[in-house]
Amino acid sequence: MALDPTSLLSARARTTGSSVIRDLLRLLDDPTVLSLAGGLPAPEAMPAERLRVALDRALRADGAYGCPALQYGATEGVPALRALIAEEACALDGRTTHDDVLVTTGSQQALDLLARVLIDPGDVAVVEQPGYLGTIQVLAGAAARLLGVPIDDDGMRTDVLETLLRDGTRPKLVVVVPDFQNPSGARLSAERRMHLGALAERYGFVVVEDDPYRELRFTDDVLPPVRAHTGLAVSLGSSSKTLAPGLRVGWMSGPRALVVPLTRAKQTADLHTSTLAQHAVHDVMADRPFVAAHLDHLRTLYAARADALDAALAEAFGDGIEHRAPRGGFFLWVRLPGADTNALLPQAIGHGVAFVPGAAFSIDGRPTDTARLSFASLAMRDLPTAAQRLARAVGSPVPASI
Amino acid sequence: MALDPTSLLSARARTTGSSVIRDLLRLLDDPTVLSLAGGLPAPEAMPAERLRVALDRALRADGAYGCPALQYGATEGVPALRALIAEEACALDGRTTHDDVLVTTGSQQALDLLARVLIDPGDVAVVEQPGYLGTIQVLAGAAARLLGVPIDDDGMRTDVLETLLRDGTRPKLVVVVPDFQNPSGARLSAERRMHLGALAERYGFVVVEDDPYRELRFTDDVLPPVRAHTGLAVSLGSSSKTLAPGLRVGWMSGPRALVVPLTRAKQTADLHTSTLAQHAVHDVMADRPFVAAHLDHLRTLYAARADALDAALAEAFGDGIEHRAPRGGFFLWVRLPGADTNALLPQAIGHGVAFVPGAAFSIDGRPTDTARLSFASLAMRDLPTAAQRLARAVGSPVPASI
Repeated sequence: MALDPTSLLSARARTTGSSVIRDLLRLLDDPTVLSLAGGLPAPEAMPAERLRVALDRALRADGAYGCPALQYGATEGVPALRALIAEEACALDGRTTHDDVLVTTGSQQALDLLARVLIDPGDVAVVEQPGYLGTIQVLAGAAARLLGVPIDDDGMRTDVLETLLRDGTRPKLVVVVPDFQNPSGARLSAERRMHLGALAERYGFVVVEDDPYRELRFTDDVLPPVRAHTGLAVSLGSSSKTLAPGLRVGWMSGPRALVVPLTRAKQTADLHTSTLAQHAVHDVMADRPFVAAHLDHLRTLYAARADALDAALAEAFGDGIEHRAPRGGFFLWVRLPGADTNALLPQAIGHGVAFVPGAAFSIDGRPTDTARLSFASLAMRDLPTAAQRLARAVGSPVPASI
Repeated sequence: MALDPTSLLSARARTTGSSVIRDLLRLLDDPTVLSLAGGLPAPEAMPAERLRVALDRALRADGAYGCPALQYGATEGVPALRALIAEEACALDGRTTHDDVLVTTGSQQALDLLARVLIDPGDVAVVEQPGYLGTIQVLAGAAARLLGVPIDDDGMRTDVLETLLRDGTRPKLVVVVPDFQNPSGARLSAERRMHLGALAERYGFVVVEDDPYRELRFTDDVLPPVRAHTGLAVSLGSSSKTLAPGLRVGWMSGPRALVVPLTRAKQTADLHTSTLAQHAVHDVMADRPFVAAHLDHLRTLYAARADALDAALAEAFGDGIEHRAPRGGFFLWVRLPGADTNALLPQAIGHGVAFVPGAAFSIDGRPTDTARLSFASLAMRDLPTAAQRLARAVGSPVPASI
């Protein structure tokens, strides 16, 4: 070869580093490590048999151009799925219509398309701190200037955001995970949702509410989305946490003035999301008795695991850990006073347990004493073992070779 | 709403216009129009029953984290599929290994990722003229400076490319569709493949050979890919034309030094391609007797349609059209001397037939007397009718209202 092709890389490709998420996915291959790291759904939470029935039906259907689940489709998504998503969104936000919905290849693509369509290099984007890694990566890749706003139990501190805005900060977008946030488990309160909507209207920015965990609540209360309070909000949904991530079917509902350019951006990105997967998701979502029973099952399953991990941590650590019982979702956020969780991770893996250090969720990547523990994918019997291994790793001396 | 959200759009989103491909996909909905426009596979060419068996098997499989076809997977792709793609690629190019393969959400995503990783605004990219619309859109979206090199029956005029290079043009990449090009049906000759590889080595650019129609040849001769001649080539493959586009499973094989940053870019784009679709494609591709019989069937089917459209055009137009019998793929490229095919399209739709004007495949978009006719998706009995309608449209006066 005459040339090293790395010399041809774009500025963006030169500055993008390797990723913690990607490296985490590799941990799946080591069966001796109990992983509290990944955000994977529980194996028994994915309705394989119901999806098999759905796919069987989709593959027997026929249309003017053959089986619609196998043929090219419109970039916006399969019409029946868009209609169903619009109906469910409108029941919560009172404004979404069919034309406001774009089906995406997972929520990750929705974040990527929003960055493409809204961010020029140097534009300001506000994220939660700690916040979802995939969002931070997308926005950093688009050369946004990232500003973090801290969260507490009630989600993003909208009072801190308001101070930034009053002081002249003019973000293009503000991204929140309103329900059972990744990584902290926090839930944006009803009051702050309203406040965030009002700030968007007053200062002119787009609110992105990335809401894959909405249905995985351990209590009965439903909070209205930010999009109920402002037409400047874009709501992201996903089948990854409630059905199966391998489908890669997500969606967004937002103002038509953004959905049109987002659709154009999606066309150059991948033409459209798999029609096969869209038909499967539509078949299952339209089966309302199944969905109701399935979500009940998931809430019971994940609530039991959250409780079990919570209890196991208290048992294994005593006062050596700060944490609170989650109210939904996949994650339990812990503080290990005095620890550097970046340095702890290799030790923990050596003890047969993995987690994600808090630094992975921060803009600056500085070491912290926090960590995200997922209770979603380990079996009940493994959760106490994982907590004990983590406690032993915290108590263990650092080997000289690390 | 306090603000029109279009005022927040990025520079890129403001300049991206509506797209011909997307508008074409909408034509699917009108059953009275015979469409020679879309590049859709024939309904009977998509092996729905074999895919149903594959998906049934994939959904009954179990792994450490549940059904692998439903769970999150590695960004690079499902290992067994990557291995199979690497094996088939290596048989042709003598260099591809497992680590050189990245599974993509259709070939369109591969083009998009290559633009992200290689193109900074103002970088030069060379495309065929006429050339694939999806490539032109991606590169224009990345703010590349596009240069066109004309094609003839033997594909890109590499002698013209060499003159440009000698005169100082320094492209980051050169994109070709080597087999049965979209839109012209041309096939890059063995000599030009070698020449293109040598030019890449001498002048230091990446060759992207986008090759979805490779297997759809009506004759027996196989030409080695450009990647057989240079390690600076990236070969794109797809299951869209041979199995089903609704799966959205494509792949690329290229130098590891590019596959690593391409994988990072893909992670921010959509985490990974649907594991469900990847498992289905792997199951079918690994069934070599099925694939051999299926490809034989496709070649016979499409060759018969190509012949039928070719004969019907000669019958309907006589000397009023220039065209040649395709040697593979989906498309027949025609010249209608004296016509403006942009202006002809609405008239043709009025007569119940659609096509894509040649201008859609050019960088400058200027009207031409050329058109792309797809013979792939219409039934044999409809091809003569489509040709007759087109001839009537060409002969018809322009209505004053258009």
